[in-house]
Amino acid sequence: MTSRPATPLLDTVHSPADLKRLSDSQLRQVADELRAETISAVSETGGHLGAGLGVVELTVAIHAIFDTPRDRLIWDVSHQSYPHKILTGRRDRIRTLRQKDGLSGFTKRTESPYDPFGAAHSSTSISAALGFKVAHDLGGTPDPALGDAIAVIGDGSMSAGMAFEAMNNAGHMGKRLFVILNDNEMSIAPPTGALSSYLSRLYAEKPLQDLKAVAKGALGFFPPPFQDAAHRAKDMLKHMTVGGTMFEELGFNYVGPVDGHDMDSLLAVLRTVHDRASGPTLIHVLTKKGKGYRPAELADDKGHATAKFDVISGKQHKAPSNAPSYTKVFAQSLIKEAQADTKVVAITAAMPSGTGLDLFAEHFPERCFDVGIAEQHGVTFCAGLAAGGMKPFCTIYSTFLQRGYDQVVHDVALQNLPVRFAIDRAGLVGADGATHAGSFDVAYLANLPNFVVMAAADEAELVHMVATATAHDTGPIAFRFPRGEGEGVEMPERGVPLEIGKGRMIREGKRVAILSFGTRLSEVMKATEALSARGIEPSVADARFAKPLDRDLILKLAQDHEALITIEEGAVGGFGSHVAQLLAEEGVFDKGLKYRSMVLPDIFIDQASPAQMYEAAGLTAADIEAKVLDVLGVVRIGAKRA
Amino acid sequence: MTSRPATPLLDTVHSPADLKRLSDSQLRQVADELRAETISAVSETGGHLGAGLGVVELTVAIHAIFDTPRDRLIWDVSHQSYPHKILTGRRDRIRTLRQKDGLSGFTKRTESPYDPFGAAHSSTSISAALGFKVAHDLGGTPDPALGDAIAVIGDGSMSAGMAFEAMNNAGHMGKRLFVILNDNEMSIAPPTGALSSYLSRLYAEKPLQDLKAVAKGALGFFPPPFQDAAHRAKDMLKHMTVGGTMFEELGFNYVGPVDGHDMDSLLAVLRTVHDRASGPTLIHVLTKKGKGYRPAELADDKGHATAKFDVISGKQHKAPSNAPSYTKVFAQSLIKEAQADTKVVAITAAMPSGTGLDLFAEHFPERCFDVGIAEQHGVTFCAGLAAGGMKPFCTIYSTFLQRGYDQVVHDVALQNLPVRFAIDRAGLVGADGATHAGSFDVAYLANLPNFVVMAAADEAELVHMVATATAHDTGPIAFRFPRGEGEGVEMPERGVPLEIGKGRMIREGKRVAILSFGTRLSEVMKATEALSARGIEPSVADARFAKPLDRDLILKLAQDHEALITIEEGAVGGFGSHVAQLLAEEGVFDKGLKYRSMVLPDIFIDQASPAQMYEAAGLTAADIEAKVLDVLGVVRIGAKRA
Repeated sequence: MTSRPATPLLDTVHSPADLKRLSDSQLRQVADELRAETISAVSETGGHLGAGLGVVELTVAIHAIFDTPRDRLIWDVSHQSYPHKILTGRRDRIRTLRQKDGLSGFTKRTESPYDPFGAAHSSTSISAALGFKVAHDLGGTPDPALGDAIAVIGDGSMSAGMAFEAMNNAGHMGKRLFVILNDNEMSIAPPTGALSSYLSRLYAEKPLQDLKAVAKGALGFFPPPFQDAAHRAKDMLKHMTVGGTMFEELGFNYVGPVDGHDMDSLLAVLRTVHDRASGPTLIHVLTKKGKGYRPAELADDKGHATAKFDVISGKQHKAPSNAPSYTKVFAQSLIKEAQADTKVVAITAAMPSGTGLDLFAEHFPERCFDVGIAEQHGVTFCAGLAAGGMKPFCTIYSTFLQRGYDQVVHDVALQNLPVRFAIDRAGLVGADGATHAGSFDVAYLANLPNFVVMAAADEAELVHMVATATAHDTGPIAFRFPRGEGEGVEMPERGVPLEIGKGRMIREGKRVAILSFGTRLSEVMKATEALSARGIEPSVADARFAKPLDRDLILKLAQDHEALITIEEGAVGGFGSHVAQLLAEEGVFDKGLKYRSMVLPDIFIDQASPAQMYEAAGLTAADIEAKVLDVLGVVRIGAKRA
Repeated sequence: MTSRPATPLLDTVHSPADLKRLSDSQLRQVADELRAETISAVSETGGHLGAGLGVVELTVAIHAIFDTPRDRLIWDVSHQSYPHKILTGRRDRIRTLRQKDGLSGFTKRTESPYDPFGAAHSSTSISAALGFKVAHDLGGTPDPALGDAIAVIGDGSMSAGMAFEAMNNAGHMGKRLFVILNDNEMSIAPPTGALSSYLSRLYAEKPLQDLKAVAKGALGFFPPPFQDAAHRAKDMLKHMTVGGTMFEELGFNYVGPVDGHDMDSLLAVLRTVHDRASGPTLIHVLTKKGKGYRPAELADDKGHATAKFDVISGKQHKAPSNAPSYTKVFAQSLIKEAQADTKVVAITAAMPSGTGLDLFAEHFPERCFDVGIAEQHGVTFCAGLAAGGMKPFCTIYSTFLQRGYDQVVHDVALQNLPVRFAIDRAGLVGADGATHAGSFDVAYLANLPNFVVMAAADEAELVHMVATATAHDTGPIAFRFPRGEGEGVEMPERGVPLEIGKGRMIREGKRVAILSFGTRLSEVMKATEALSARGIEPSVADARFAKPLDRDLILKLAQDHEALITIEEGAVGGFGSHVAQLLAEEGVFDKGLKYRSMVLPDIFIDQASPAQMYEAAGLTAADIEAKVLDVLGVVRIGAKRA
C-alpha cells in the first residue's frame, strides 16, 4: 500500500459546514489536500480518477458557498463525485469505492443526504435540479428542507438532447437555478459535435487571464441588495458575460468562462451568483480532467477510469487476462466483416473505446461515426443509413440502449430496417453497479415485431453472431454479450452466419434439460459436472436466439424430459417468457412439465464483482445445480441454498 | 357528400415530375387547388387538417425544385403529409386516409417510394436525413439511387432533444443537408420553451416583408458556379441571413425567415439553396397552421385533428358519445385528488389536450407543467419533483413513454421515487395506427424493481387507480388506460385507494378461469355470456395489478380450475409472462395446467377502428370464446376461427 498523504487541514473538515469557517487561502489548501486524498484513495480502489481531479476546486467552492445538503447539489453522471464524497462525511469509507458493500462509484440517494439525486447515465442533472426548484416553490417538504438547486454538468453531457430539453424548459420557466457547465473538452473520449466547437470558440474569444479580473471586479459593481436588487443583479451579471449567446437565447444568464482551478475566481463568481442571481444562470467553468496528477494529465483518456495504481509512477496494476475481452473480439470480428463488405459501418454514442470502435476506426475512419452522447439520434441515424442501403452496426451498452428505445421501436422495428445492434455490457457489469446493469434489453427487444435477438454463449459464438448480423439484411437484428473476458475457447478464423432461429445441442442427457441463452452456459456446464457426479445427466442446449425461438428444439426438449429449465442474464419478460408463451400455446403445460425460468431477480443489485453479483442474483452453477435437484425432487445434502 | 372542388391543373399532376414543366404562376395555382383538394379529402375522412394546410405551398415548391424520390424528402411527424401524398401518386386513395386498408395518416415506406422514411413520433427527420446523406457519400445503393436529403420539421419538433442531437451531429459533419424549419408557432398546443421564444425573436427582428426582396435579390448576387463556388456560395448565403445565430453556432447555414405561403419567395430561396448550398443549411419558413381554411384558422388548435366535417360550415360530424372518455375521467379524478392534496402536480410533454391536462390546468395552472416535446426531460423532472416531496403525475401516452424509458429505469425505478405514470392510449388506438399503439409498456415497466403496474378495467376502476397512485408514496406506480370512451359503468363519487397487489373476482364459475388485465374485461364478459349459453361457466377475475401480482388469487384460480387463461392489451413479456413465471416457480405446471396467455400478436397492426384492430389481434369476445372451447377440448360448431 502506498503511504497516505498528509492532509492536516482536510482532517478537520467533517462536513461542508466546516468549510464555512475557513479563509479563501485555507480553502485552497483544502483543495490541494483533497486532490492528494482522492489520488490516494483511487490508487487503492481503482475507479474514475480524472473527472474527480478536474473538479476538486469546484467541489470545495460549491460546498463552501452553498448550503448543502439543503441546497441540492446534483452531479451529472457523478463519476466526478469522489472529492464530494470525501467532503460530505464519507471519507472513512472512500477506500471501499466501487467494491461490494462499499461506497458506490456514483452519487446515491440512499448513501447520503448530500446526494439528493443519484446518477450514472449522463445529462439528467438539469431536469432533476429543475424538479427540486419547482418543488421548493410549491412547498414540497422533503427532509432536509429545500433550498437552491445546482446542477454540475460536463460539456459532453451538455451535448445530449436531454440536457437541451431541460435547458429549454428551465430557461422558459425563468426560476433561479444554477447550471455549472464543467467544460473540460472531454467526455470519455474527446467530444464531437458542433456544440463542442461552439464552446471552444466561446472561450477562445475571451482569454481566461482576463476573467479573473472580471470576476473580482464584478463584486465591486454589485450594490447592496434593495427593492429592485433582482433586476439590477441581472444587469450586473451581464457585465461578467463574454459570448454565451446560445445559453442566453435559451433564457439563461451566462457567466464565464471561469478558470476552474483558480480558487479565487471560482469563489468570487460563485459568491456573486449565489447572492444576486434571480433567474436561471449558467456558469461556464473551464477545467482539466486529471488536473494535478501528471500520469492522468498525460494519459489519452486523462485518467478517466483506472485500475489500482502506484501513486508515484502512475503504473496501473492490471490483472493479466486469460482470454480476449468480448469487446475486443467483437471489434476484431467487425473489422473482418467490414474488410469483406464495404457497406458495413459502425456507430457509437461517445463510447469509442468502451465499445471497441476505436480499433474499428483505425481501419475504417470514414466508416465509423461517433455521434456524441446522443443515443436517440444515433439509433435513428442508423435507421437512415440502413434505409440508404448501408449495413449499420449500432454499437452500444445494453443500459444505454434504453436511451434510444422509442427509436428502436418506431424507426427501426416498425419500418423493419436492417440495423444491427451490437449490445455490449449485457447482464451484470460489476463495479459500475446497478445503474450500468444490462438487465432489460432482451425483454424490451424480443417482443418487437420483425426483430431477431441473439445472445452469445462465448466469444467464438460472438464471432459467428457478428457474421450473422452482417449477413442478415431483411430486418433488425441484435446480439448481446457481456462485459469482461471471454471463456478462452478456441476461436474461429472467420465468422460463419448462423441459421436464424436455430439453437444447438451441447450435451445429450435425460430427465432434465437446461436451455441457456447467453454466457450463463459456462455455469450451466459447471453445474452439469456436479450433477453428473451425482448420477444426474442433464441435457444442455444453447438457444442462441430469443427471437425467433427454435420451436423444434424447445418442443423436443420439453417432450423428451420431465423438466425444462431456462436460464438467461436478464429480467423476467425476456427469453424465458417467450419460451413459456410457446409452451403454453402448444399445450405442453396441459400434460405437466416441470418448467422453471431462471432470470435476474426483482431487485437492483449493488456493485461488486460480476461473480458476486451473479451470486446475489442466484444465477451461479451452485444455483443451477440446486434448481435441478429441487425440480427433480432430489433431497440435497449440504445444499448451499434452501 | 360535399361536392368536390374543381382542380383542373392539379388533375394534370400525376407525379412530382409533372410539376417541373409548370411556370411559377402555375405552381401557385396548383397549390391553391391542392389546398382545396386536401380540405375536401379530410372533410370526408377526418384526420390531421391544419398541419397539411400550412405546408401546401412548401410541398409544391419542394417537389418542383428537388428531384424526389431520388432526393429523400422526410416529413417530421408527417401528419402534414396529406398534400404530399396527393402530389405523389396517391390522390386516388386520399379519401381512404386513416381507414382500414387505406392510406396511412403518416408517411410510410411500404406505401410509396416518395416516403423514404416513415414517421409519426416527432423529431426523427434530421437523424434520418443525415443517415441518407452519409449513405449517399459512402456508396449506399438503395432503389431509387440516393440524392439530396431534406428534412421538414416543425418548431415544436425542433425543441425535442433528439432534434438537437441531430443538429449537433450534422453541423459537425458539415455535409450538404437541408433542414426546413416549418415554424408555425404551434405543435399541437402552442409551444412552450425557450427555443420557441427565441424563434419568435428571430423573425420579429426582421420583418417578413423585407424577405421577399432579399430572396429574389439573392439570386442576382450569386455568380455562376466555378472552382470555388462552394466557398463563395456559403458567403453569399450569409447575405440572406437575418439572425439565426443559434443554428449557425451549430454549424448550419441559416436562411430565412421566409414566408411559407408566398410561392415566389419559397421558390426563389429553395432554388438558391438547392443550386448553391454546400454544407448543412437550415431554411426557416414561417407558415400558418390551418392556412386558407377559415374554420381551421379560427379554431384554437388550428384544425390539428378533426372528425369528418362540412366544408362550407366547418362543422364536424362527431358521433354522440355514450360514456365519458377515459382521458376525461382521468383528468376529473386527478382534479379531485389535487383539490384534496396540494402536493399533486401534473406534467405533460406537449399534449395538454390529448391527456386531459388542459382541464387540470384550468383548476391548477401553477401545478401543471407542459415541458414541451421532451419526454426524457419530463420523466426526470418528475423524478426531481418526487425527490422534492411532491406527488408528480407524469401524464403520457404509452407510445411516447418509450421516449423516456431510460429515465424511467435510471432516475425513477432505481431510486424508487414515487412518480405516478398515468399512461393513456394503452393498447391499440385506431386511426393513428401502429406508430401510436401502446403495446409494450407493461412488458417494459413490470420487470423494473420497485414499480407498481396497474391497468384499469373500466372508467370506475380508473378513478380508483388515480386515488391509489395519489396515496402510494413509497415508490413508482403506473396505471394504464385506453383511448376512447368508457364502458358506461356507474361512477363513484370519489376514488378509493385499492389495496396494492390485490385483484378482484368478477364471476365465480368452474373448469376455466379467465384472468383479465385491463379493458379486455368487457370482451371477456361477452365471451362468458356466449359460453354460458353453451353450459360453460368460466370464472372471471380482474387482476388490476401486473405488479405486484395477486399471488393468492392466481394460485387459487390455478388450483380450482383445469384451465387458466390470461388476457391483456399488450405484447408478450408483460402481465401473462409474469403470471407464467409465478406459476412455473410455484411448480403449478408440474402437475399440469391448461394455461394460455392471450396477448397482442407479433405483428404491427395497421390503422383501422380499435375494434377492427383487436379483431386483427385476435383479442375479441369471439377469440376468447374460441380459446376457452379449444383449451377445454370442446369442438365448436360454426367456429369463426380455426
